[in-house]
Amino acid sequence: MENFRLEKDIIGERKLPLEAYYGINTLRASENFNISNKRVNFNLIKSLVIVKKAAALTNEKIKLLDSKKSQAIIKACDKILNGEFKDQFITDSLQGGAGTSTNMNVNEVISNIAIELLGGKKGDYCLIHPIQHVNMCQSTNDVYPTALRIAAIKLLRTTADSFSKLQTALQTKENEFSHILKLGRTELMDALPIMVGQEFGAYAKAIARDRWRLYKVEERLREINIGGTAIGTGMNAPKRYIFLITDILQDLTGLGLSRSDFPIDITQNMDVFCEVSGLLKAAAVNLMKISNDLRLLGSGPKGGIGEILIPPVQTGSSIMPGKVNPVILEMISQVSMKIIANDVSITFAAANGQLELNAFAPLIAENILESLEILNNAVISLTNNCIKNIKVNVEKCKLNLDSSTALITALEYYIGYDKASEIAKKVIEENIPLRDILIRENILSEDLIEKILNPFALTSPGIPGKPINS
Amino acid sequence: MENFRLEKDIIGERKLPLEAYYGINTLRASENFNISNKRVNFNLIKSLVIVKKAAALTNEKIKLLDSKKSQAIIKACDKILNGEFKDQFITDSLQGGAGTSTNMNVNEVISNIAIELLGGKKGDYCLIHPIQHVNMCQSTNDVYPTALRIAAIKLLRTTADSFSKLQTALQTKENEFSHILKLGRTELMDALPIMVGQEFGAYAKAIARDRWRLYKVEERLREINIGGTAIGTGMNAPKRYIFLITDILQDLTGLGLSRSDFPIDITQNMDVFCEVSGLLKAAAVNLMKISNDLRLLGSGPKGGIGEILIPPVQTGSSIMPGKVNPVILEMISQVSMKIIANDVSITFAAANGQLELNAFAPLIAENILESLEILNNAVISLTNNCIKNIKVNVEKCKLNLDSSTALITALEYYIGYDKASEIAKKVIEENIPLRDILIRENILSEDLIEKILNPFALTSPGIPGKPINS
Amino acid sequence: MENFRLEKDIIGERKLPLEAYYGINTLRASENFNISNKRVNFNLIKSLVIVKKAAALTNEKIKLLDSKKSQAIIKACDKILNGEFKDQFITDSLQGGAGTSTNMNVNEVISNIAIELLGGKKGDYCLIHPIQHVNMCQSTNDVYPTALRIAAIKLLRTTADSFSKLQTALQTKENEFSHILKLGRTELMDALPIMVGQEFGAYAKAIARDRWRLYKVEERLREINIGGTAIGTGMNAPKRYIFLITDILQDLTGLGLSRSDFPIDITQNMDVFCEVSGLLKAAAVNLMKISNDLRLLGSGPKGGIGEILIPPVQTGSSIMPGKVNPVILEMISQVSMKIIANDVSITFAAANGQLELNAFAPLIAENILESLEILNNAVISLTNNCIKNIKVNVEKCKLNLDSSTALITALEYYIGYDKASEIAKKVIEENIPLRDILIRENILSEDLIEKILNPFALTSPGIPGKPINS
Amino acid sequence: MENFRLEKDIIGERKLPLEAYYGINTLRASENFNISNKRVNFNLIKSLVIVKKAAALTNEKIKLLDSKKSQAIIKACDKILNGEFKDQFITDSLQGGAGTSTNMNVNEVISNIAIELLGGKKGDYCLIHPIQHVNMCQSTNDVYPTALRIAAIKLLRTTADSFSKLQTALQTKENEFSHILKLGRTELMDALPIMVGQEFGAYAKAIARDRWRLYKVEERLREINIGGTAIGTGMNAPKRYIFLITDILQDLTGLGLSRSDFPIDITQNMDVFCEVSGLLKAAAVNLMKISNDLRLLGSGPKGGIGEILIPPVQTGSSIMPGKVNPVILEMISQVSMKIIANDVSITFAAANGQLELNAFAPLIAENILESLEILNNAVISLTNNCIKNIKVNVEKCKLNLDSSTALITALEYYIGYDKASEIAKKVIEENIPLRDILIRENILSEDLIEKILNPFALTSPGIPGKPINS
Repeated sequence: MENFRLEKDIIGERKLPLEAYYGINTLRASENFNISNKRVNFNLIKSLVIVKKAAALTNEKIKLLDSKKSQAIIKACDKILNGEFKDQFITDSLQGGAGTSTNMNVNEVISNIAIELLGGKKGDYCLIHPIQHVNMCQSTNDVYPTALRIAAIKLLRTTADSFSKLQTALQTKENEFSHILKLGRTELMDALPIMVGQEFGAYAKAIARDRWRLYKVEERLREINIGGTAIGTGMNAPKRYIFLITDILQDLTGLGLSRSDFPIDITQNMDVFCEVSGLLKAAAVNLMKISNDLRLLGSGPKGGIGEILIPPVQTGSSIMPGKVNPVILEMISQVSMKIIANDVSITFAAANGQLELNAFAPLIAENILESLEILNNAVISLTNNCIKNIKVNVEKCKLNLDSSTALITALEYYIGYDKASEIAKKVIEENIPLRDILIRENILSEDLIEKILNPFALTSPGIPGKPINS
Repeated sequence: MENFRLEKDIIGERKLPLEAYYGINTLRASENFNISNKRVNFNLIKSLVIVKKAAALTNEKIKLLDSKKSQAIIKACDKILNGEFKDQFITDSLQGGAGTSTNMNVNEVISNIAIELLGGKKGDYCLIHPIQHVNMCQSTNDVYPTALRIAAIKLLRTTADSFSKLQTALQTKENEFSHILKLGRTELMDALPIMVGQEFGAYAKAIARDRWRLYKVEERLREINIGGTAIGTGMNAPKRYIFLITDILQDLTGLGLSRSDFPIDITQNMDVFCEVSGLLKAAAVNLMKISNDLRLLGSGPKGGIGEILIPPVQTGSSIMPGKVNPVILEMISQVSMKIIANDVSITFAAANGQLELNAFAPLIAENILESLEILNNAVISLTNNCIKNIKVNVEKCKLNLDSSTALITALEYYIGYDKASEIAKKVIEENIPLRDILIRENILSEDLIEKILNPFALTSPGIPGKPINS
Repeated sequence: MENFRLEKDIIGERKLPLEAYYGINTLRASENFNISNKRVNFNLIKSLVIVKKAAALTNEKIKLLDSKKSQAIIKACDKILNGEFKDQFITDSLQGGAGTSTNMNVNEVISNIAIELLGGKKGDYCLIHPIQHVNMCQSTNDVYPTALRIAAIKLLRTTADSFSKLQTALQTKENEFSHILKLGRTELMDALPIMVGQEFGAYAKAIARDRWRLYKVEERLREINIGGTAIGTGMNAPKRYIFLITDILQDLTGLGLSRSDFPIDITQNMDVFCEVSGLLKAAAVNLMKISNDLRLLGSGPKGGIGEILIPPVQTGSSIMPGKVNPVILEMISQVSMKIIANDVSITFAAANGQLELNAFAPLIAENILESLEILNNAVISLTNNCIKNIKVNVEKCKLNLDSSTALITALEYYIGYDKASEIAKKVIEENIPLRDILIRENILSEDLIEKILNPFALTSPGIPGKPINS
Repeated sequence: MENFRLEKDIIGERKLPLEAYYGINTLRASENFNISNKRVNFNLIKSLVIVKKAAALTNEKIKLLDSKKSQAIIKACDKILNGEFKDQFITDSLQGGAGTSTNMNVNEVISNIAIELLGGKKGDYCLIHPIQHVNMCQSTNDVYPTALRIAAIKLLRTTADSFSKLQTALQTKENEFSHILKLGRTELMDALPIMVGQEFGAYAKAIARDRWRLYKVEERLREINIGGTAIGTGMNAPKRYIFLITDILQDLTGLGLSRSDFPIDITQNMDVFCEVSGLLKAAAVNLMKISNDLRLLGSGPKGGIGEILIPPVQTGSSIMPGKVNPVILEMISQVSMKIIANDVSITFAAANGQLELNAFAPLIAENILESLEILNNAVISLTNNCIKNIKVNVEKCKLNLDSSTALITALEYYIGYDKASEIAKKVIEENIPLRDILIRENILSEDLIEKILNPFALTSPGIPGKPINS
């Protein structure tokens, strides 16, 4: 007995393993693209399956597809969405063909599951044909971008939520540390005093902007080109189909998707993904800044800045006993760099679209989904494994501040820029605290010094030592 | 007689040429940073001067600065804004110090102009001191980002306007070519018919998105940290000053600038410029796509696709007689690449901020302003020197379409995918037009063929040959 | 009975599944870094295992490790190298800690395999300790870069070999098509005649440079810092160990590895990976150029340039019957873009090393190995699935050339640039072949025309129609 | 009397100012490309002029050009090379046309200077024609890449020389600081002791690699396509010309230029510039690493790491008296980022070449020359304004090291990893120096401690306290 079945396409005949739900198109794709050892992102597969389900529902309603067939297709889709048959989606994440291989993989697997549901054998495509039934009224060029938008919006929402939690964690620290005075640094040099809480407040502000951006950009992805078919003109997709499938997709996904009024545009232009990726990159920039800052402030434990304590999460060295490293933060920096790099390939791919289609959509899809996933996972780990448990080394904060010249600027109003410069030089060269020099040289009265060097005055607008709002 | 004056700073004494309005800080900076042979972007200088003028107005009103001094400063600022003294701004565009050299260059030039207005000699800083008077209540770290935002918003508006004109030009072509049928291509292969106008419509849509993005992102730049001084805490800037200077800046610029409620954030975080640059990059992606398409469609004049005619604007070759190249479009592609590259340095710089400041603000400033300028200039040239004068080669459009298999998909509904594939093969191999084969082989009646191949039906949603909305 | 074992580290105690060969360090890492859904590149794991084996052999020879222990470690290493225990390497490809998690994963798995080989139970680290025995005389900071170099060199060699085969395939086509005249294009506009073979010759030349670069850069990777331990100074690694392990690594790998004379440098500086990645990027640039050219030349089949025939490898569309796309070439372009993007993250990571180490080595490692793997796989697919089977459409080549003005430059010597420009204009506007105009207007004798338009003369140096070397 | 002259091209007639040496082609280009406010890099112009001179010499020798004409052209070239007429090269650095505008600008200026030398009036092109005489046997497509290679090699040599001086400066510091022990840090955390000199030695090593790379890559640029004319086939360039001009170019430049044996390749492929840029990027990576390290080590002056003293070169703040910033190093980081960004546009442009030419050569040219120039200037400033005057704060080095746990690893051999971890914890928590704890708890004899903690032993291979080579 044979342990394979035969399938045929315009190139010729091929044997398929009997257990394979995918068909000849998928087989050829898997041979042509044996590149990355990484399969198509499963979030994209699931979204494609949702689109297929919506199309079957639509085609049944507008009587293009008989109920028996459409119901079988719908059940097949549900099985996949419930987690079955995941191993049947074997196409490589790096592939030519603008997503056709991925779409055909989905069409073929759904088709063969549905065939079996109808009592047929895999490959009996007269029962349910991958193209004529599963792909009815569709083209890769409209289902693929539509599915990508659905997958991206879902991940955007999850990610925005994770940013919201990170923001909260940072604000908690802002409050917790709101009265701990420390040295502020510009260009890594001693600058002015600042509260530790203010530093976390600045991080929270940046993350709040990211959250807002992630939230707002969703609307740009909501416009879908479903029904545009091959080039957006809509050939072979009846108007009734186009309107109905959009409604059904809204229902199935719970997302505010809307039909593009000019799907030719959406089919060929990928600038929207470039826009989204650009915002992920802005988030990466903020995360990298925060991560670098915290690593710097937590450097030590003894021979560094040492003003904050990063919670230990694992042993740091295979040779240095007792060493603990800021590994979560280092991971954050690397995730940020990866997102920045993904943005380059998305940009490159988006810029190289040609005429009615962008053949490089698979690269865009993989990279935007990867960026969203790693960003989300990284932010969750950052929040839980690091930010929430950060502590301040109050003593070290005081030590660094007191030994510095950071307070000299507070005196400029009283003694002038040039005199202040002179005193600053003395503090550095003679290694004597500023306060002591001021008193030693009778520059200001102890009383006034006290007023000037009030921590709250030092970290708020106005001239220290003068009435507020003066 | 001496032909120089002496100035002094914390490092020592230096000779300045008598005619120099800049001072010792500028001199040292010009020696330290003799790097790029390119000076600081003058849009930034002008915006800094506006900030200085606003500060003088404010300080006079709140009585920190006597009227004589402030009026001299204001007059000096106006002279620069009127185009005088441009050659005095000599600091290199690539510089360390987070903008301090640029700020000091501005302070010193204003100071010396003002001194002369008061009848003094350059260098008599007791009359008008670059730091204590011109820079009063300010730090580089608040004036520089504020000025950068003002300069960027102004350029954003100009650029959005240029995009608007480009959009109009494209829409004019959309209408002009709305009835010329041509071959649509996906992955550079013959796909489905499309109207030339629809292609220009897709470009117009993409440019409309860019225009919207350029317009919307302005609001992100409106929040300024003026009054935050060195690290955003506002030390040495009275609250009255902060509120008043924001109002005055609004008046002087006519822009809806607003005071940040947490300037510590704005002082250290550069993600907003990364966001703006990311959107410029999305615009670059669209421009590159359009430019590549038009070059492709205009390839020839005889041995290429040749469907459109790019207007000639200069001789194309120093060796090939009669050759004309699509040089405006090639320039557009290069400008796009440059903007994409600038985004990388902006990202890199923004991600590497440390603690209370980003020392790499000068790189961010130069690149964002350069991107805006070249984008604007390129779009103006594209609109006027190319898009407005594009013509269609109707004959070539017809020839390419008729010889192709693009119409086969219109028959799928009638004869099925497999039969259609067979016929497509014949068209290609036997080199016979589709219509002829259909008739020769009695596949469809001439009447039905006529109905199916109606140009409007072929480029609108629905099954060609069936009643609309069926 | 318990189905877990307990392990302890400086943070506390954790339960490990009984079947886990990895230990507490790996467990914590897998929880801290649940980011990318992608494990550490297995080529790196295998190279680390080779280093561990070399260390055990060395430590036995210099009597730091008793033979029973070292032999158990060596056997454990061999098992892994033979493909066992692959599922035990669970650390995420995106991780903090400069590779410590990966190194500890390897140490722990080897340790527990070796413990069982000695009859112990997993976790009995007094038998074989992951750090004190498996990691003896080592630090992550010397074994990780050493293993990365080994993995990279191996992939470089495979890749250079694939480029060599691609070069051969291109040269075969160069010969095969050496006498087919076609239109050459500059800036996509009709330029001068060229042989199809010459075009493939130019591709072969570019690929030959890539091959040479891949071959030459290996020497840069041969210098290893093994024995430098934590920061390159070599603390805790006896000199005898350092010399011996280098020899043993040479034997085990067959690679010309050499001991760095200044391992502090190699431990902290990652520029060499940036250099390698830069060369992979140059290869990507060539591949993208070739891929874009072939897609352009193969555009059609009827309505495009159509001068070459790309071999079909799969069905191209789920909606357009008979459509075949250049999917291998599209994959090549995307792989190129991915390599270019990976170069950005490698650059970013390499530039952000700090002091005695680069904490971002894991990102560099993943990206350089991924770039090498996908480059190699893509080139193999390109050679076998595309280049080898490319054919020329001789008729279309002739048609495009004859209809063009490409031959006009050949007449410049005889009639001058200005007259030639005029004639070129006529060819384009009147749509009459050049040859006909020349005869019609009695510009040159038929005889001379024949001599000038000799295909070989047209595509070789010199003035067409004049004796060679004149 | 008229104050303009008329010129004509295939598009029509234009007025030129009488004083303009450039002609109609340049005029049109300057109007078409009014983009960047930055002219073509003058190094490229000068190299083009050298090529023109070589062509005139060659054409005279092979009797294509009469001596009177050629000598006038040569004299005109010499005038430009001597610095005259610089203001006549007005084409924008961002331009379409693969360099034709730049080449025509050069042709026209040379032509008009030569015409005047022959007693004619500007515009009398029958005396010396920009194309037929100045551009004789040439095409933009061979002279432009040839000139670019000449300009790039010259800058490469200057830059390699500057790197050599930087390397020497770093090695001087390596020696000067060879006996100052300090804390080494990995992942910013206290690691092992290291000599300050060793740190500078690692920088010197990295810079030495850069120098070597800059030196070696020159050979890749030596292969020129002069004589290939429009597409590399050499039409209209006699063989005698090709051989002779190569020799003459060698003489005029003193560079080992060689004739490509397949100029079709060199004309269309730009991977070599991508390779060079990739190496500049590796240099940028090293410079950024060094610059970041030095800024970190020099942070303070009081509240940071403070182990080295960066020489002050200018006042650091307009508000904070006495502040000095590491501005040279900050400039270095920005230059590095700029070079990294330039590499992106070079890569993008090189990858987007099409068929027989890369239309984006002007972008590649501008960016590669800019990268070389700013790299060279930045390295000179780094060497002279920073590295040479760096000092060590010996006291702070000792303080940071002594307070840290960096020495604990030296004891691992004696007390085991676990015991060592325990002690490390005590040092950190109890804030007691390691040495004191060891003695207090009777862990090792004072004598042995002394032997173990010998500075040289601590920073060399081997187990501290054991005989060398043990």
